[in-house]
Amino acid sequence: MTTFISLLEHHWQRDNFVCVGLDSDYQQLPETVKQGKSVEEALFAFNRAIIDATHDLVCAYKPNIAFYEAQGDAGLRALIRTVHFSKETYPDIPVILDAKRADIGSTNLGYVQAAFDQIGVDAITVHPYLGKEALAPFLARTEKGIIVLAKTSNPGAGEFQDLPVGPAQEPLYQVVARHVAGQWNANGNCAIVIGATYPEDLRKARAIVGDIPILIPGVGTQGGAIAATVTAGKDSKGQGMIINAARSIIFASRGSDFAQAARDATERLRDEINSYR
Amino acid sequence: MTTFISLLEHHWQRDNFVCVGLDSDYQQLPETVKQGKSVEEALFAFNRAIIDATHDLVCAYKPNIAFYEAQGDAGLRALIRTVHFSKETYPDIPVILDAKRADIGSTNLGYVQAAFDQIGVDAITVHPYLGKEALAPFLARTEKGIIVLAKTSNPGAGEFQDLPVGPAQEPLYQVVARHVAGQWNANGNCAIVIGATYPEDLRKARAIVGDIPILIPGVGTQGGAIAATVTAGKDSKGQGMIINAARSIIFASRGSDFAQAARDATERLRDEINSYR
Repeated sequence: MTTFISLLEHHWQRDNFVCVGLDSDYQQLPETVKQGKSVEEALFAFNRAIIDATHDLVCAYKPNIAFYEAQGDAGLRALIRTVHFSKETYPDIPVILDAKRADIGSTNLGYVQAAFDQIGVDAITVHPYLGKEALAPFLARTEKGIIVLAKTSNPGAGEFQDLPVGPAQEPLYQVVARHVAGQWNANGNCAIVIGATYPEDLRKARAIVGDIPILIPGVGTQGGAIAATVTAGKDSKGQGMIINAARSIIFASRGSDFAQAARDATERLRDEINSYR
Repeated sequence: MTTFISLLEHHWQRDNFVCVGLDSDYQQLPETVKQGKSVEEALFAFNRAIIDATHDLVCAYKPNIAFYEAQGDAGLRALIRTVHFSKETYPDIPVILDAKRADIGSTNLGYVQAAFDQIGVDAITVHPYLGKEALAPFLARTEKGIIVLAKTSNPGAGEFQDLPVGPAQEPLYQVVARHVAGQWNANGNCAIVIGATYPEDLRKARAIVGDIPILIPGVGTQGGAIAATVTAGKDSKGQGMIINAARSIIFASRGSDFAQAARDATERLRDEINSYR
């Protein structure tokens, strides 16, 4: 069976650890892309150009659905067309839907259907707060990737995620990582999120989860350093990382050379990551 | 300024505490509604009939977006039409989007735009995990309601929500409730979620948050008892509750009398709630 994890491993063996975040905010698209096009056509044309320009350098694509929902119907159609284009043209590259979903059990069936059947992605990000029991409909999809937030990249992430829990006063994000790598991962389809903005927490989380994949947002515009990220984030094989950069790649240029600029930025990030592995 | 909270208070003063959960799973709609209609038309016709039949008995409607996303484009169009119909026909009744969103700050702007500007609801449910700093774009919308998950109604809610935090070993859901009722509520637009399936936790949460509104899911099909819910959940004025029932109301009958059956179920729940206030 081709699984999300096996697709990742295929690219890691080719030294590809960059995940391009398709956070395609319509307001920020290059004028040359928007001109004479509907919102749907402009978003799709932009994403297709980015994917075509970077496909041999990445381990995954990760559209964040918020940027598409903000454009209503047209945005969602553009998202679906983007995912279908990517999977038809480059079937080996996994697509992660950054949707940060999670509801009670029966309701999650709707999200599972939307993400995996309607949109057609290989993996999805989820909030841990409702627990494993609620997320069962996600976890049951053995061939997909279920990527659970542990320590997020934002400045205020620690408000709850760093709270000391239990007699051992272990930070909450470490408890989440432990649960996910343990009981949640019965189907071998789990991963966690740790922000590159917290490299010391990334090191601790890696020690807890062993070789399960870690999605690492927060390099690039958010400021996470590559050397610290790779040193802290790599697994026992020097792999296991999905290092996401969005704005620093897709908006590297706002001119008509945006696709080439995205390729150049991806290549630089790829080389920098590999220089520290 | 008409705010989400002022709309709620208007209905509470009329002894209306029922929130009808428009969890309109297409598969479960009555055959008479589906016959000869597209998915979009069937979902919209069903919701419109439920709203028309119950509007004088409720304090809010709460569509859960997962059931609409599961139907792709057509589902989302039906959701938007439902919200627009409800707000045009019954402008005083607040509509809560149960979307359980939360991302890092800049990304939340997309969700804010989708919920409040595209779909047009009065309030939204959010996950607390990323902290106040991330949710700032939601909290800045003074006129809207930001309803934060504290203790959810599902059987496995306690996996993280009951973890003992800090030197006082206070359960995490209580820490969340304390943060929301305190610093998060600077604009007076916050509420929390506590499941009716945990009445003792509802009592403790009410003691923590004072008179801020509590959205209480889990009565009806999920089994939360009304007497215990109202006793534990009411505020100092005997109000403050948004008591949600979904399947037990909207699917009270699967026949052509579904709207009347929904009205009857709403009225029974309304009377039972008021008998314990």
